[in-house]
Amino acid sequence: MAPAFRLGELAGRVGGRVIGDARREVRGVAPLDRAGPDELSFLTNPRYRAAAESTRAAAVLVGPGVTLAGQTLLEAPEPYLALAEILEALHPEPPARPGISPDARVDRSATLGRDVAVGAFAVIGERATLGDEVVVGAGAVVGAGSRIGDRTVLYPRVVLYDRTQVGRDCRIHSGVVLGADGFGFATSGGRHRKVPQLGRVVIQDDVEIGSNTTIDRGALGDTVIGRGTKIDDLVMVAHGVQVGPDCLLVAQSGLAGSTRLGARVTVAGQSGAAGHLAIGDDVTIAAKTAVFADVPAGSVVAGTPAVGIRDWRRTQAAAKRLPQLLNEVRRLRERLERLEADLSRKE
Amino acid sequence: MAPAFRLGELAGRVGGRVIGDARREVRGVAPLDRAGPDELSFLTNPRYRAAAESTRAAAVLVGPGVTLAGQTLLEAPEPYLALAEILEALHPEPPARPGISPDARVDRSATLGRDVAVGAFAVIGERATLGDEVVVGAGAVVGAGSRIGDRTVLYPRVVLYDRTQVGRDCRIHSGVVLGADGFGFATSGGRHRKVPQLGRVVIQDDVEIGSNTTIDRGALGDTVIGRGTKIDDLVMVAHGVQVGPDCLLVAQSGLAGSTRLGARVTVAGQSGAAGHLAIGDDVTIAAKTAVFADVPAGSVVAGTPAVGIRDWRRTQAAAKRLPQLLNEVRRLRERLERLEADLSRKE
Amino acid sequence: MAPAFRLGELAGRVGGRVIGDARREVRGVAPLDRAGPDELSFLTNPRYRAAAESTRAAAVLVGPGVTLAGQTLLEAPEPYLALAEILEALHPEPPARPGISPDARVDRSATLGRDVAVGAFAVIGERATLGDEVVVGAGAVVGAGSRIGDRTVLYPRVVLYDRTQVGRDCRIHSGVVLGADGFGFATSGGRHRKVPQLGRVVIQDDVEIGSNTTIDRGALGDTVIGRGTKIDDLVMVAHGVQVGPDCLLVAQSGLAGSTRLGARVTVAGQSGAAGHLAIGDDVTIAAKTAVFADVPAGSVVAGTPAVGIRDWRRTQAAAKRLPQLLNEVRRLRERLERLEADLSRKE
Repeated sequence: MAPAFRLGELAGRVGGRVIGDARREVRGVAPLDRAGPDELSFLTNPRYRAAAESTRAAAVLVGPGVTLAGQTLLEAPEPYLALAEILEALHPEPPARPGISPDARVDRSATLGRDVAVGAFAVIGERATLGDEVVVGAGAVVGAGSRIGDRTVLYPRVVLYDRTQVGRDCRIHSGVVLGADGFGFATSGGRHRKVPQLGRVVIQDDVEIGSNTTIDRGALGDTVIGRGTKIDDLVMVAHGVQVGPDCLLVAQSGLAGSTRLGARVTVAGQSGAAGHLAIGDDVTIAAKTAVFADVPAGSVVAGTPAVGIRDWRRTQAAAKRLPQLLNEVRRLRERLERLEADLSRKE
Repeated sequence: MAPAFRLGELAGRVGGRVIGDARREVRGVAPLDRAGPDELSFLTNPRYRAAAESTRAAAVLVGPGVTLAGQTLLEAPEPYLALAEILEALHPEPPARPGISPDARVDRSATLGRDVAVGAFAVIGERATLGDEVVVGAGAVVGAGSRIGDRTVLYPRVVLYDRTQVGRDCRIHSGVVLGADGFGFATSGGRHRKVPQLGRVVIQDDVEIGSNTTIDRGALGDTVIGRGTKIDDLVMVAHGVQVGPDCLLVAQSGLAGSTRLGARVTVAGQSGAAGHLAIGDDVTIAAKTAVFADVPAGSVVAGTPAVGIRDWRRTQAAAKRLPQLLNEVRRLRERLERLEADLSRKE
Repeated sequence: MAPAFRLGELAGRVGGRVIGDARREVRGVAPLDRAGPDELSFLTNPRYRAAAESTRAAAVLVGPGVTLAGQTLLEAPEPYLALAEILEALHPEPPARPGISPDARVDRSATLGRDVAVGAFAVIGERATLGDEVVVGAGAVVGAGSRIGDRTVLYPRVVLYDRTQVGRDCRIHSGVVLGADGFGFATSGGRHRKVPQLGRVVIQDDVEIGSNTTIDRGALGDTVIGRGTKIDDLVMVAHGVQVGPDCLLVAQSGLAGSTRLGARVTVAGQSGAAGHLAIGDDVTIAAKTAVFADVPAGSVVAGTPAVGIRDWRRTQAAAKRLPQLLNEVRRLRERLERLEADLSRKE
């Protein structure tokens, strides 16, 4: 059974306060509609306010100033961040058991740090280097000359092509492929000749990469994912792309070759950017957007081709009025013709 | 050699009738342009009518009232359904040979039903439970505490993270990843902190999932795929999504976190829905659509952002006339200016 | 250390000429901003001209007529093609070491050519046939009855379902799934019944397929990828699609069932085509496009739904002026009303 925490103790951890009985104990966290009387729930999206008012939870984690009649509240300055911290306290991740499976194939020339875990049927290639407490899941393949930093986890069936670099504290989910050849072909006379892809993929520290995402090696230079960046499932990062620190690349988005992203860029779901572009710091690319030109720092863009989101909204709103506008213009023309006829009759 | 079936026998199986010689025998089914005189072909898409008229097939499977000069017809009330039934009769799937490969690693605490097949280099984790006649393909990984229902097939290299539930009679194709962490991060001061993902993925009975699709575990609750739902390749279902029964999610579509789909929803190719939305029963989301708001039951929506398909078509048609409209408005202004000038001259 | 080549020698190989000292030696190729004095760099995209002027490289590979003050030039008629040839000369791919890993499972009934390499934990099924110098990476699965042509490379964790055909000189990257069931269901009474998928996937010679791409087997006929076609990562090709020779399918694009592409078609990133369409030779489908109708040979199309790119650009340009147009029409109406009022007052 999970250990119990008093609400007051949790409030202390997250820099918040309890509105109600701070001695009440919780043993877990659950969504509003399923939480029981020994669980904490949370309201971080106002859509769920009604559920928050009727939840059976011991208390509801909320942001500053939120009130909920009849509920004990755990108010935190950043409630979603507090949720992350409380979940970690209540549900600590079980540590991986170190050890090399007798069914793994670790090349004799590979270097392994302390307390490394390697699962069944994993393959560690020549001269690969794994830091301390690295976990390599079942069936994963670490190519020759690759390096993996301390505490990084490769889930089952990840593939690192030769010479891929992954930093510390990364999580690479199942099915991810890092370092496959970029899509580089020289077309001549209608035929496509392969351009050798000789660069690497370099993943900096504290990066998470979702299932079945693919990141291709650079043609000559490296493809780089900056520190703290988080990548969702089924994302495609092409050769030579440079992603800055603390970016978010949401599911099914894609970045074409040699494009550079600054820091804290968000690329929302199913969006893409063409190649050789510069996307500045703190840019947000809305969902389903196609970026075909450089984007200055701080912009929010949407549409195909992407424009500033205010322009996009204005055009969208105007487009809805288009059928009506066509009618209006027809009527204006008719009135004008009538006026013209009236006038010419008078002359 | 495949067994021969008389057309009359096949007609009986599918509730149809033969127009022509019901004693004629067929040994297989082939497309119109390649069928030989001992094969059945079919016309389920009117685009191929010319090919149906000139096919060498023994007979053509058609819907009610279709006529084809000079051809023997097998008329069925639902011809595509009949095709499925006839293909099953003519080409029965060879049963998997039960048995645990000596190269698989099945944890001692796992529970296996009758006639289970486990391929080479597959891994079955602690306390996993497999029903009767389950097939686990080569290199697949079944995480600790997962449960798989009777007759379900995992093709080679599927990954189930810990505690994933899959119902009976499911087919999970190669490269699918079920139960990886959802994309949940609390952003504070420009940094992204992981929100532990503690829920599960629950796949109900009779679900098929295409290659390299990813379905993430819920943050706290479960991600649920309803009974009878069919999912194509490279689809992304985010944490906490609930998909109702008998839905179709077509290739490269995506559903963001906590969105709920009713029954019999179709999400066409390359479409997506934002998070925390409610999509009603029998909704159709057209291809390449981005849904950013709730969709009431029975609607057909298209566009980015999605609107009712009639509005979308009207706006599209009007947009085509835009360049012409701009000219028209310019001409109207000129005529108006001329009128104004005329009138002021007369005063 | 890499062997050194004189610029003059490289110029001879690529049918070009040196402008400057042809005896200068280079040992590698590097991007403009990172090349050292014993490396060649290249200017194939005019965006990087400033970097080309200040590079420390021994010489810059350029197209005909390009001048760069103070730099030695290697001028080639097709500089990107020359780059491919020079990279091959300077960085020849190390040959795979032939041999069957003792940890692979090769069925006794499989046929293997000369100098085949099979990695650890790979599985070669019954009656599979591998040509000479074929490489099967770690953890790859080759289904029963599949055939792989000479010199083709399957990178780690590729899956070929039963009876898949792959030609000569192909490269299939990690995570690719060839031959899984197409998405074919007959819907009756709101339920979806599986239509057996009995065709094959046939990949012709000299095809490259990027990571985690999926190509489904035909329902009855085959899904065919033509000779010399190159496919990027995370692409989806549905059942019965026929792709002609020398096409390019860029990342995250998708082709729905039974669509046919001619020769030299480019499908740019995140684009898609609906099913049962005919796309002619030399068509270009721009990025993020959705094709819903046949496309005649030689066209360039864009938009959702796709139209000729000139029409698309004209409509896009007009759409930007929409908010302004709405204002203009309102003002015209006001002026017209004033005129009408004036006139009626005079009568």
